[in-house]
Amino acid sequence: MADWIEELRSKLGNCIHTDIATLEAHAGDKWHAAHLPEAVLLATTTEQISAAMKVAAAHGIPVTPRGAGVGYVGGCVPVRGGLVISTAPMQRIVELNPADGVAVVEAGVLTADLQEACARVGWFYPPDPASRKESSIGGNIATNAGGPRCLKYGVTRNYVLGLEVVLADGRILRCGGRTHKNKQGFDLTGLFCGSEGMLGIITQAILRIIPAPPARAALHASFPRFALAAQAVQNILQGGHLPCAIEITDAYTLAAARAYLQNDVLPADAQGHIIVETDGRADAVAAEIESISRILGDTGATAICPAHTEAEVEKIWQLRREFSYSLKATGLTKLNEDIVIPRSRLVELVDFCESMQRETGIPVACFGHSGDGNIHTNIMVPKDAQGQDVRQPADELVHRLFRWVTEHGGSITGEHGIGIAKAPWFPAAIGPTAMETHRAIKQALDPLRILNPGKMNLD
Amino acid sequence: MADWIEELRSKLGNCIHTDIATLEAHAGDKWHAAHLPEAVLLATTTEQISAAMKVAAAHGIPVTPRGAGVGYVGGCVPVRGGLVISTAPMQRIVELNPADGVAVVEAGVLTADLQEACARVGWFYPPDPASRKESSIGGNIATNAGGPRCLKYGVTRNYVLGLEVVLADGRILRCGGRTHKNKQGFDLTGLFCGSEGMLGIITQAILRIIPAPPARAALHASFPRFALAAQAVQNILQGGHLPCAIEITDAYTLAAARAYLQNDVLPADAQGHIIVETDGRADAVAAEIESISRILGDTGATAICPAHTEAEVEKIWQLRREFSYSLKATGLTKLNEDIVIPRSRLVELVDFCESMQRETGIPVACFGHSGDGNIHTNIMVPKDAQGQDVRQPADELVHRLFRWVTEHGGSITGEHGIGIAKAPWFPAAIGPTAMETHRAIKQALDPLRILNPGKMNLD
Repeated sequence: MADWIEELRSKLGNCIHTDIATLEAHAGDKWHAAHLPEAVLLATTTEQISAAMKVAAAHGIPVTPRGAGVGYVGGCVPVRGGLVISTAPMQRIVELNPADGVAVVEAGVLTADLQEACARVGWFYPPDPASRKESSIGGNIATNAGGPRCLKYGVTRNYVLGLEVVLADGRILRCGGRTHKNKQGFDLTGLFCGSEGMLGIITQAILRIIPAPPARAALHASFPRFALAAQAVQNILQGGHLPCAIEITDAYTLAAARAYLQNDVLPADAQGHIIVETDGRADAVAAEIESISRILGDTGATAICPAHTEAEVEKIWQLRREFSYSLKATGLTKLNEDIVIPRSRLVELVDFCESMQRETGIPVACFGHSGDGNIHTNIMVPKDAQGQDVRQPADELVHRLFRWVTEHGGSITGEHGIGIAKAPWFPAAIGPTAMETHRAIKQALDPLRILNPGKMNLD
Repeated sequence: MADWIEELRSKLGNCIHTDIATLEAHAGDKWHAAHLPEAVLLATTTEQISAAMKVAAAHGIPVTPRGAGVGYVGGCVPVRGGLVISTAPMQRIVELNPADGVAVVEAGVLTADLQEACARVGWFYPPDPASRKESSIGGNIATNAGGPRCLKYGVTRNYVLGLEVVLADGRILRCGGRTHKNKQGFDLTGLFCGSEGMLGIITQAILRIIPAPPARAALHASFPRFALAAQAVQNILQGGHLPCAIEITDAYTLAAARAYLQNDVLPADAQGHIIVETDGRADAVAAEIESISRILGDTGATAICPAHTEAEVEKIWQLRREFSYSLKATGLTKLNEDIVIPRSRLVELVDFCESMQRETGIPVACFGHSGDGNIHTNIMVPKDAQGQDVRQPADELVHRLFRWVTEHGGSITGEHGIGIAKAPWFPAAIGPTAMETHRAIKQALDPLRILNPGKMNLD
């Protein structure tokens, strides 16, 4: 056994694991790549992580931090082996304090568990990544997770007031704090949000929570053309509405959903579809859904279905989830790219995807958070005669998609991050000066380059 | 004339100024300290600033960037002389694009001008520092400016999607972009927000704008004890309301306001006072103000005055401004400290200030953004027989206040920043590891230490 592992064992005892089952369980995330680490620290305290980083720094051992491990870009694949540090066991909600409007949580707390704890006292933690039942706060912060409600409520970063972070050399940094405003120096808290485990290991967070809106309402509506659905998004916002969420879905996905659902929830001629959710005072949300319905009618919606009770609203979100399932039910492999485009370019994006589809024969299904332009663009990878994914043309298609997005003022990732999956396109997406700035900051905070190496194309 | 000034002149011509009037006009901000620079660049383009920074870097000349120069902490005092770069002349609103939900503005655009441009097309840029009519967007971003509405809408940083920044060596960095979500690497955009001109010079910003809420309403209410006003803040939020703003005012300020206003707007027995503003759909805000009125009645408010029309709401904010004027009218010098405390500690803060006042004889007036705990704590400095401010006991009082705030989980600045004014207390406020991290980042982005030297206690 390597001497650094012996040293970790002697310092940290049986929270250091080297059995193959544990190594395999910490070799990757939901992306396809995987690589075995040599040891895993299942951490229960910040001090353990600090001690482990001191050993890793002394020996120059690569360290890959991870939370619940449900990322989509290989961000926690230990590509150089070494040590994996998991904060998944750190599941304590340390404090829930509506009087200060804060929750203090360990990094391993699942997002949904925090949301439920808040809801029990009538408060609200808005960030709502689709993975919220399995993803942890530490990972949410490290990727600056989004979700449908960001249109009104913003991303994870907007709710992080303070952090405890173990730095590359094992020092424990506490930045930000429990106040809702804080102008004490540079925004270190913000810098660690979205840093993908490359600048430090997030161990605890002080999060902003807000009073729960007393009511919500929603609607879904179908359109005979996708362009009308996109126009409806603009008309809602131009009408002075800022809903929590406006989700849009394209014709390909709708066709898959009709085949999968086998019911008449979606009209046969629907080529575009939106879901709108609003929240606030009960009387206000009802009036707002009525007003939005009128806007959608004027924009050419053929079926408008409002939802006023909690059960009805939940049913609409269930429909949204079924769009995802129905794409999987096609038998094709869904490569979900979380690109973002300026909101006015929705129709152009879908037209571009359709033209790629005609050219390559590979379907591209678009749906997602149209309010903020964050469209999940799903490349539907066909299989060959042996049942293997035909990746090469799909990869070429992804390449063209990312180039188009970069050229049109977009972002190649809105929620998942760069990790390994998007590293090849990252330098072109942000440009050379931003790459140099990334490297300078990485060098400043991790001069030995031991923290999550091999990611973001920074080495 | 110094050779670096000759070189600047030869490259940039008559936008380089060395006349005494221009030097004096760029020697400081609203804080009391001032120091003459040797030259001033009144920039109209990013390229000029880039060229100037290359010259400054080649000669190792200190550079102090500034926007409109209305800061409160001496953040743009050129303490080491050298070059001042002003972005004040860069006043172009490059683009106002509701379809994408963005405004692209040069750094010198006044905040109020942007807000008015947005309002003309039915859109809204929420950050509302009190200085909005004279402060520029570049300065707002460099200090991450706040304001009363942050309770609901958050601070400036939450509206900055992308930045153009001239780095210390003259390279032009573009980070972030025009999408509402962006997970492309580290949050460089966020790092420059609040960096007080010490990491780069902000020249252009892409800002998020949102649909203007169609209506707003407000109320103000008086309480026979300050503790009841503080309790009212908690009860409003616990009641499921998230107003735009909840402003609180203490007994000392109310007494000064009664003397200044000479009317009966404030009851003679008022020892605490709050202002609440809500916005949204017209019917909703009316209902919400009614609901909040009931909560305030139940909490012991003696006078509750709702405001439903735009004129009535504006009148309440005028009252808020008059609190400030009435403190100035006492004839004492108002040292405005923008501390932040956890929201639950409002009463403790005011009690502490009253005890300091009893002990020292120096009045302390507290009012401000109670919803987010950002209380403007005004040390009312007396004058000696010669009409000079008696600073020494006042400075000692500030010292005790900052120590109390740091010990109670607060922040010594919520809006103004560190600059020179708060630099002595900055290391204790954030701790040694955070100081080292600040220095590492400063070293990474400005290795020659020419950008805004002498601030934040980093040299």
